[in-house]
Amino acid sequence: MASDNPLIRDRFVDFLLHDVLDVTSLTRCPHFAEHERETFDLYVAACRRLARSRLFPTYRAMDEAPPRLESGRVIVHAEVKRLFRELVDLGALNATRPTSVGGQQLPMTVAALAHAYLMAGNLSAYGYVGLTTGAAHLIEAFGSDALRSTFMTPMYEGRWSGTMALTEPQAGSSLADVTSSATPTSEGHHLIRGSKIFISGGDHDATENVVHLVLARIDGAPRGTKGISLFAVPRLRLDAGGALVPNDVHVSGVIHKIGWRGLPSVALSLGESNDCHGWLVGPPHQGLRCMFQMMNEARIMVGLNAASTASVAYLESLAYAKERTQGRSITEKDASRPPVALVAHADVRRMLLRQKAIVEGALCVLGAVSRYADLSEHSTDADERARSQKLLDLLTPIAKTFPAEKGFEANTLALQIHGGYGYSSEYLPEAWLRDQKLNSIHEGTTGIQGLDLLGRKVVAGGGNTLALFADEVLADLAEAEGVSGVDVASIATTREALHRLVALTATLAQRGVAGDVEGMMGHSADYLEAFSIVVVAWQWARMWAAAARREEDAFVRGIVRAARYWIATEVPRVLQLAALCEGADRSYLDAREDEL
Amino acid sequence: MASDNPLIRDRFVDFLLHDVLDVTSLTRCPHFAEHERETFDLYVAACRRLARSRLFPTYRAMDEAPPRLESGRVIVHAEVKRLFRELVDLGALNATRPTSVGGQQLPMTVAALAHAYLMAGNLSAYGYVGLTTGAAHLIEAFGSDALRSTFMTPMYEGRWSGTMALTEPQAGSSLADVTSSATPTSEGHHLIRGSKIFISGGDHDATENVVHLVLARIDGAPRGTKGISLFAVPRLRLDAGGALVPNDVHVSGVIHKIGWRGLPSVALSLGESNDCHGWLVGPPHQGLRCMFQMMNEARIMVGLNAASTASVAYLESLAYAKERTQGRSITEKDASRPPVALVAHADVRRMLLRQKAIVEGALCVLGAVSRYADLSEHSTDADERARSQKLLDLLTPIAKTFPAEKGFEANTLALQIHGGYGYSSEYLPEAWLRDQKLNSIHEGTTGIQGLDLLGRKVVAGGGNTLALFADEVLADLAEAEGVSGVDVASIATTREALHRLVALTATLAQRGVAGDVEGMMGHSADYLEAFSIVVVAWQWARMWAAAARREEDAFVRGIVRAARYWIATEVPRVLQLAALCEGADRSYLDAREDEL
Repeated sequence: MASDNPLIRDRFVDFLLHDVLDVTSLTRCPHFAEHERETFDLYVAACRRLARSRLFPTYRAMDEAPPRLESGRVIVHAEVKRLFRELVDLGALNATRPTSVGGQQLPMTVAALAHAYLMAGNLSAYGYVGLTTGAAHLIEAFGSDALRSTFMTPMYEGRWSGTMALTEPQAGSSLADVTSSATPTSEGHHLIRGSKIFISGGDHDATENVVHLVLARIDGAPRGTKGISLFAVPRLRLDAGGALVPNDVHVSGVIHKIGWRGLPSVALSLGESNDCHGWLVGPPHQGLRCMFQMMNEARIMVGLNAASTASVAYLESLAYAKERTQGRSITEKDASRPPVALVAHADVRRMLLRQKAIVEGALCVLGAVSRYADLSEHSTDADERARSQKLLDLLTPIAKTFPAEKGFEANTLALQIHGGYGYSSEYLPEAWLRDQKLNSIHEGTTGIQGLDLLGRKVVAGGGNTLALFADEVLADLAEAEGVSGVDVASIATTREALHRLVALTATLAQRGVAGDVEGMMGHSADYLEAFSIVVVAWQWARMWAAAARREEDAFVRGIVRAARYWIATEVPRVLQLAALCEGADRSYLDAREDEL
Repeated sequence: MASDNPLIRDRFVDFLLHDVLDVTSLTRCPHFAEHERETFDLYVAACRRLARSRLFPTYRAMDEAPPRLESGRVIVHAEVKRLFRELVDLGALNATRPTSVGGQQLPMTVAALAHAYLMAGNLSAYGYVGLTTGAAHLIEAFGSDALRSTFMTPMYEGRWSGTMALTEPQAGSSLADVTSSATPTSEGHHLIRGSKIFISGGDHDATENVVHLVLARIDGAPRGTKGISLFAVPRLRLDAGGALVPNDVHVSGVIHKIGWRGLPSVALSLGESNDCHGWLVGPPHQGLRCMFQMMNEARIMVGLNAASTASVAYLESLAYAKERTQGRSITEKDASRPPVALVAHADVRRMLLRQKAIVEGALCVLGAVSRYADLSEHSTDADERARSQKLLDLLTPIAKTFPAEKGFEANTLALQIHGGYGYSSEYLPEAWLRDQKLNSIHEGTTGIQGLDLLGRKVVAGGGNTLALFADEVLADLAEAEGVSGVDVASIATTREALHRLVALTATLAQRGVAGDVEGMMGHSADYLEAFSIVVVAWQWARMWAAAARREEDAFVRGIVRAARYWIATEVPRVLQLAALCEGADRSYLDAREDEL
C-alpha cells in the first residue's frame, strides 16, 4: 500500500480553484468580501493536512470494524468521536455558513474542493459532518428562532449530529408513498409515528444527540408529495428542566452495507410508544420543497464523494504502476533485460489516463457547479443569480451521476491495475470500489437523475434553461479556441456534440408536447450520459485553455493529454447515444415483462 | 432473497444446445457416437438438479466463512468435502474425458452449458472440480503412463485435487520471469524450489492430497519462456511403501480475496528443506506449451464462470423487479393509485434487457466456442478440425474477456435494481459482483487478452484466421436474413461492422509490417472490445434466426428483443472504436509517466 497517497493532487486543485474557476473573483460579492485568496488557500491547506494526517490513516480500521448494534444502540468505531471533534474544530461543519451562525462564510467552491480531501481520506468520517451540516442548514433556512436555538446551534457547534430521514421500507425512492404520520398536539410539537430505513448516521455514540429531519404526513394531509411535511425529531429531547430524555426513537436494525462501513445505515422506528415528539420545520405540507434544499446539497456532496473516492484510488494505482515492475515492452524480445514498470505498458497508461480524465473532469464539474451555487445566492446581479440558479439546478443530476457512474469505472480500473493484489483486501482499491457503488443509489438513483434531468430540468424548464447552458458552453469554447495551444479541431468536435444535444432535446421535447411521454423519457439514462459527456468535455476544454496559458511542464501536458483523450474518446459517443434516444432502439420500451 | 432462483434459464439452455448449436449433430463424430440427445439432456438435467438442490443453498455460507490458515494448513468450509464428492459422483470431473480414463466422453458443448449451472450455483465449489480436471487432463495429455497412474487416476477419481501453479510474486503475469528451479536427480524426479502465489485451491482439507502443476526452470535452462518446464508436484508424495508422506510443500499465506471466498487462494513455498519432489510432465523446456492447454481450457472456464455469475444475478434482479413495487408510471399523476412493480419502469426494463443481452450473448459465445473445441478434436474431416482449431484459438480471448468485462457491468446493474438493499450483504447481488471482478484478472488480464487477440491470434495468424472468421460470420448472417421474422436492417448493420473490423485489422497489420508495433497494438483493448461486439452480434443474429423459426411466444419475443437491442445499441460502437484504434487518439500512447 502506498501510504503516502496524496488523496487528491494539490497542484490540480490549486489550478482548478485559481486558473479555471477564478475563485478569488467571488470576493467581489459582498458576502465573501472579507475573504481573499490567502484565506481560501489556508482553509484548503488545513483540510489537506487533517485528511492526510488523521482521516486517511484511520480509513482502513473503520472499514474493518463496522458499526454494531448493542442493546438497541449503535456503537461506532472509537475514532469517530475524535475525528468528528477534529473536523468540527477545523470548521468543516459550517465552513460555508454565515458568521452570524458561527460559520466562516466561505464560498461553496472553496469548501467543496477542500472537503474533497476529507472525503478522499475517509468518506465515512466526513459523512457525519456532511449530514449534520445539511440538517442544520435546513433548520437555519426554514426553522423558527426557537428551533434554530434548540436544534441548529448544537449541530453547528458539533455537540449534536444530524440526519435526513426520508426513505421508508415500503416506499423506497417513491416519496409520494411516505406514510409516517404526525399528529398535532396543543404543546407545539407533533406526535410522530412511522418507520424509516437507510438512515445514514441514524444512530451512533459519537455525539450526545442525533437530530433527524423527518418527512411525515400531518393527519388529514393530502395524498402524494404535496401532503408531506418536514419535522425535526431528535433521539433525545429536552424536558422542561433542560435535561435530555428519550424521545421514543428506536433503532430497529443496522444495514450491513458493503461500503461506507464507518458510517452506520440504520432502520428507525419512531413513536412505538406514541411519545415521539417532532417539531414542524417550515410550512405544513411543504416538507418536500424544504427537503429539496438538503437533497440538492446532498446530491452535489454525493458527486464530490464519488470524485474523491475515484481520486484516491487513481493516485494509488498510479503509484503502484510506477513502482511495480512486470514484463517487458511489446517490442522487447530479450528476456534477460530487466522488467519494466507497469506504467510503461500502453494499456496500463490507458487505464491511468482514463481514470485521470474521469477524476479531474468530475472535480471540475463539481467546482463549476459549486461556483453557480455561490453566485446564485450571493451575486449582486439579480440576472446572474437567476441564471446561476438555473444552471445549478440543471447540472445537479450530472454533478451527482457522472462521478458516481464513471467513478465506479475508474475505481474498477484502479483495482485492475493492481492485478491479483487488487482482488485482495490486503490492498485498498477493493474497499474504494465498494464505497463507490453507493453513489449511484443514494440521494436518487441514476435512473431517477435521468428522469429529473430530462423531464424536470430540461423539458419542464421550457427550453430556456438549455439555451442558457448552450450559451455558457459556446462562450467558453469560443474562448478556448482562441488560446494558443488548444486544438481547434477538438473544440469543434465538442461544439458539434453540443449542437447535437440541443437538437436531440428539441426532438424529445416535441414528443412530450405531442403526448408521447414514454417516447420522450424512455432513453433518459442515455440522455443523461450524452449530456454528461458534453458537460465534462466543456470542462476539459476550459481546463485545456487554462493550462495552455501556463508555461509548459509535465502538469500542463497532463491536462492537455486528458482533455484531448476525453474529447477524442467520449465525445463521439454523443452522436450514437442521441440516435438511441431518438428511437434507434425501442426494445426495452416495448418489452413485456415476460420477455425479459 | 428470491431463493428459487433458477440460476440459468432452462428454456434458454435447451434452445442454445438444440436450436442454435445443434449439439446432437456432434454425434456424427465417432468419438460422440454412443451419445444421443437424451444422454446430453440427462447430464444437463443432473447438473441443474445438483446446482439447485445442493450448490446454491450453500453458496452464501461459503462466502461468509472463507478459508482460514491453521498450523500451516488451509481449512475450508466443511461443506466443500461433501460437495466435491457429489460433483465427482455426478461425473463433473471427467465428463468430457474419454471412457478409457473413466470419463463420459461428452462434448464440451454439453458439459460447458451443464456446468454453467454448477458455476452459477456456487462457483467456488465448482472451482475445485475445474482445477482438478484441468490438472488431470494435462497429465493425461502429456504425462507418461507412470505419471498417469500416480497422479491422473486419483484426480479423475476425485480422491486428490489439482491446481495450476504458474504465478510467482515477483513475476506476476510475466511467465518469462518465472524463477522456480528444478534440479534433476538420479531417481527420476527433480528437486523443486521456489515461491508461487495466487494458487487457487492451493491447499485445503477437502481431499487427501493436492497435485500442483508447477512451472519451473531446470538448472541451466534458457532464459525466458523457452526455458520453462512443467512438473507435477504433490503436497504429499508416495514413499517406497506406498504411504503418503509430506513433500516439502508449504503454505506461506492465504490471500484475503474479495470474492470466490469458498475457494482458497494460496501462496506456496516449495522446497524449503530441499526435499520437494517434482515429476517432469512433457518434454523439458516445453512446459509453457503444455500449460497452454490448461490455460486455454481455463480461459474458457473463466468465461463460463463470468457468464454464469452474471446469469444468476440477472435472474435474481428480474424476480426482484417483478415482486417489488415502487412508484408509479411517469404518466400517472394520481398518487392514490397503487404503486407498480419495478419492472414497469422503462429504465428498470433497460437494465434487465441489457443484462439479458450480455448473459445470453455470452453463453452463446461460450457454446459456439465449445463446439469449435469439440470439432477441432473430434471431427472426422481434417479441414474442419483445422478450421475449428483456428476459430477456437481466435475466439478464446473474447470468450474469456467479454463475459468477464460485460458480466461485471451486468452484475452492477443487478445490484442497482435492488437499490439500497442491493448495497447490503443481506441480499446476494453484492456477493456476485465481488465474485465477478476476478474474471477480468485471473488466467490473463483483459489487457493481456487484447494483446493475445490482436498480436498473436489475428496478426501473427497472417490474415488467414480472420478471413476464416469473416466467412463463418457472413455465412450465418446470410442464413439469418433469409429467415422470416429476422430484421434485415439489423443483419446489414452487423455485416457492416464486420467489414469495418476486417478493414481495421488490415490497417493495423500494415502498421506492424511497417515496424510500428506500438501503433498497431496501442489500442488493443479497444480492438478487443470492438471484436467482441461483433462476435456477440453474430451470435445474437444466429439466435434471432433460430428463434424466428419457432412458434412465437414470450420466450421467442424475448430473444428477438435482446438481439435487436444488442445490434442497435452496441454494434454502432464498433465504428467509433475502430476510429480510435486507427489513431483518433494517441494520448496515452504518447503520455510520459509524469503526465499521468
